[in-house]
Amino acid sequence: MMSVDLAFGENELLPAIAQDAETGEVLMLAYVTEEAIERSRETGEAHYYSRSGEELWHKGGSSGHVQRIEEIRVDCDGDAILYLVDQEGGACHTGYESCFYRTIGGETVGEKVFDPDAVYE
Amino acid sequence: MMSVDLAFGENELLPAIAQDAETGEVLMLAYVTEEAIERSRETGEAHYYSRSGEELWHKGGSSGHVQRIEEIRVDCDGDAILYLVDQEGGACHTGYESCFYRTIGGETVGEKVFDPDAVYE
Repeated sequence: MMSVDLAFGENELLPAIAQDAETGEVLMLAYVTEEAIERSRETGEAHYYSRSGEELWHKGGSSGHVQRIEEIRVDCDGDAILYLVDQEGGACHTGYESCFYRTIGGETVGEKVFDPDAVYE
Repeated sequence: MMSVDLAFGENELLPAIAQDAETGEVLMLAYVTEEAIERSRETGEAHYYSRSGEELWHKGGSSGHVQRIEEIRVDCDGDAILYLVDQEGGACHTGYESCFYRTIGGETVGEKVFDPDAVYE
């Protein structure tokens, strides 16, 4: 199904950036397997590989905060993926729209869009 | 100098996304060490770690296509970095503004902004 050669590393993972297709906000960085990319293309919703759970991860499968895929891009070396998505709710488990809600100096700059206690039991 | 704890892995690297601070375009994904982040903060220009060259990499140091740092963000788990930058020239060695200039289906969607033969000898 893929047309661009992907350079999966020894661990068969590639980093994948999710970006809000409309606002341009970078939402999160996670990892994908070839299977995760194929499932994203087939279902139209972002899939990743959970390194902690060691399994295919359908983002938002339990929280409802799915990411509808608008386009998938590949970088020049084929070793990174960019998901352009329409994010339902927020991307971050903390309730922020983006996982990148802090500066490196510790200042909160992101927007909180949901109450994690109400979403995750 | 850092305020947010970073979760460097066994290889002491973290993935770092560079995003154009003005247009929101995701420019590239590379890797950083703690030293690379510190040099970025000290100099105001993006530094990475070159995995192929196994050395600190001042992006644009030879091509002139530097990335002026406007802000550095950290994700929720402290295991990914976002550089918000003002990109001189283009980010990609192929001459495209962004390394993510192709869809996974192989369609070119990015904009070419310089001639790599004129920049890299």
